[in-house]
Amino acid sequence: MSVTAPTITSFLPPHRTLMGPGPSDVPQRILDAMARPTIGHLDPAFTDMMEQTKTLLRYAFQTENKLTFPVSGPGSVGMETCFVNLVEPGDKVIVCSNGVFGGRMLENVKRCGGVPIVVEDAWGRAVDVAKVEAAFMAHPDTKILAFVHAETSTGAQSDAATLAAIARKHGALTIMDCVTSLGGTPVLIDAWGIDAAYSGSQKCLSCTPGLSPVTFSERAIEKVRARTTPVQSWFMDLNLVLGYWSGEGKRTYHHTAPINPLYGLHEALLILAEEGIEKAWARHRTMHEALKHGLEGMGLSFLVPSDERLPQLNSVLLPEGIDDAACRARLLNEFNLEIGAGLGALAGKIWRIGLMGASASQKNVDTCLKAMAAVLAV
Amino acid sequence: MSVTAPTITSFLPPHRTLMGPGPSDVPQRILDAMARPTIGHLDPAFTDMMEQTKTLLRYAFQTENKLTFPVSGPGSVGMETCFVNLVEPGDKVIVCSNGVFGGRMLENVKRCGGVPIVVEDAWGRAVDVAKVEAAFMAHPDTKILAFVHAETSTGAQSDAATLAAIARKHGALTIMDCVTSLGGTPVLIDAWGIDAAYSGSQKCLSCTPGLSPVTFSERAIEKVRARTTPVQSWFMDLNLVLGYWSGEGKRTYHHTAPINPLYGLHEALLILAEEGIEKAWARHRTMHEALKHGLEGMGLSFLVPSDERLPQLNSVLLPEGIDDAACRARLLNEFNLEIGAGLGALAGKIWRIGLMGASASQKNVDTCLKAMAAVLAV
Repeated sequence: MSVTAPTITSFLPPHRTLMGPGPSDVPQRILDAMARPTIGHLDPAFTDMMEQTKTLLRYAFQTENKLTFPVSGPGSVGMETCFVNLVEPGDKVIVCSNGVFGGRMLENVKRCGGVPIVVEDAWGRAVDVAKVEAAFMAHPDTKILAFVHAETSTGAQSDAATLAAIARKHGALTIMDCVTSLGGTPVLIDAWGIDAAYSGSQKCLSCTPGLSPVTFSERAIEKVRARTTPVQSWFMDLNLVLGYWSGEGKRTYHHTAPINPLYGLHEALLILAEEGIEKAWARHRTMHEALKHGLEGMGLSFLVPSDERLPQLNSVLLPEGIDDAACRARLLNEFNLEIGAGLGALAGKIWRIGLMGASASQKNVDTCLKAMAAVLAV
Repeated sequence: MSVTAPTITSFLPPHRTLMGPGPSDVPQRILDAMARPTIGHLDPAFTDMMEQTKTLLRYAFQTENKLTFPVSGPGSVGMETCFVNLVEPGDKVIVCSNGVFGGRMLENVKRCGGVPIVVEDAWGRAVDVAKVEAAFMAHPDTKILAFVHAETSTGAQSDAATLAAIARKHGALTIMDCVTSLGGTPVLIDAWGIDAAYSGSQKCLSCTPGLSPVTFSERAIEKVRARTTPVQSWFMDLNLVLGYWSGEGKRTYHHTAPINPLYGLHEALLILAEEGIEKAWARHRTMHEALKHGLEGMGLSFLVPSDERLPQLNSVLLPEGIDDAACRARLLNEFNLEIGAGLGALAGKIWRIGLMGASASQKNVDTCLKAMAAVLAV
């Protein structure tokens, strides 16, 4: 052979405490589920589990939407699935941009041939609903409002209920990013009237990364069905995906689903249902209060005003004279603790401390506070 | 809560013998690897493992291509990654269609705005190289030749070396589907001069589904870099993906990689390197001979002529008067054996018996022959 076999051994990962912006700590129960025997993606036993997973996801999203399923890819694929299906060339889309993921939405709109109307807000602040209302007044032919409920890059939470109501009043559909909120703070798809939403498996659901739960309202499905141009992506085309995930009549082959990761997601959603979603939300709030108390006691302050703050993602400002990378390296190497760096304009200015899913525990709060105190020498 | 918690219990899958068109049997070593603790996708320990995975994939693909990595999605995403990056609007693409996956390539070309020139061959036959040569003569301005090396829907293998040589002679790039061939029969990216190829984790690599190894030549990367239109997919845009997977300089965040499935792929590739790829190819051939001998002894015959046949995917014609679905249900329920049905035009006409990766074993051959004899009552 021209390319010879490399000498490499099995990978044995270190045990970390994951308190960055995701992945969060994955409970052993979920890891064990992922290690169960692989079966075929058209096996009746597997399709039964798929139906259960859809039911469990409807609970997590608080929706009756029939089209609720996990996309076979990370959150970015869930995002793109929403945009390529709902945005037709020439559609005006109001995109709220207050962080990295609003910017990614904008990029998606452009690549779909949509006409973006950008509503800018400062990184670290919620979306200003008055600006969105004004954008609709200026562009009454807007087809879609797209916003990030929980900005993973800043830790700011926006008022999804009000934003969705504005969109509906103006006859537009909504696309909501709830990657970091699902399971951590209320996500009420039906009560708010959201038309399309996507999330990720590795945040407050505490599963491994790689799957993106999505949900679509009937109004959203009608827009996809009424398209006059084909969806630009074959893989993400809901008209085709529906044949596999819909469960109506014969299930047709579309792609080979990621079997074992789906075992993991099923178990993760089961853990959420067992705890009860309201208790999970309350736990995230309680742990946030405990962490905040400790961090403020060390003199650290938050990027986001308290009434716009996500409990599960705590962005703290770096103290003066602190070496960002060196501190995070110490946390990782001496304490096996991962926290997140700032992204984009916030690189070197903030740390993002996640309290997501199983990571929202007193044990993790204690670990984090102890390690931070040592590294900051306070 | 308006949507109440469903009462569902943990999913305990049955133990199947997987001899369909994939997934194949996943060794316990790989399942154990997937259950190791999750770490962050920017953790230095993880990025070291990524580099090892790229090295192991270069061995599997027999290439020195720097841009060789697993796409975070199933084989269909690997396919779409090749097409959306390499096909620019107006590009002429010769698409060889001799089964379901050639048809899917055609669909990809159309959605990228390419101009497809279709070379049709019968389902169950290899691509006719003379027709491809003729298509190039008729369309000398063709930019890309796309073909399926191992048609998963039929079990036919095409002459990739000759096809790639024809494309190169006419100044075109090649895109090759090797989803079902990688690790099972020779795939020699550099020796053949293939410019872009994609595979799947769940076939002859015997990993769980959900990852798509891809490789790109320097010529392919040049075409992507020289594009005058943006890649229509944000997620699949190699210009962006490169920043994360390239390993050159600072690794920039693109998406959250599916950590635990990647542990599994690393282990699967390690198993291949330990066995040695030539021995793996020989094992697939030997098991095919054993299975063929047994099946022919029962009076079954093959769809594909022997010199165009894939050892790892055996398409046998259904005997007269046999109830397709009922027989496969008996195999599954009484013998825990999964084999594949025919797709598209071959539905109800063939069975597809896989001998892929760990499923290419004497034990599996014996299990299959015994179960088939019982169900066919021969």
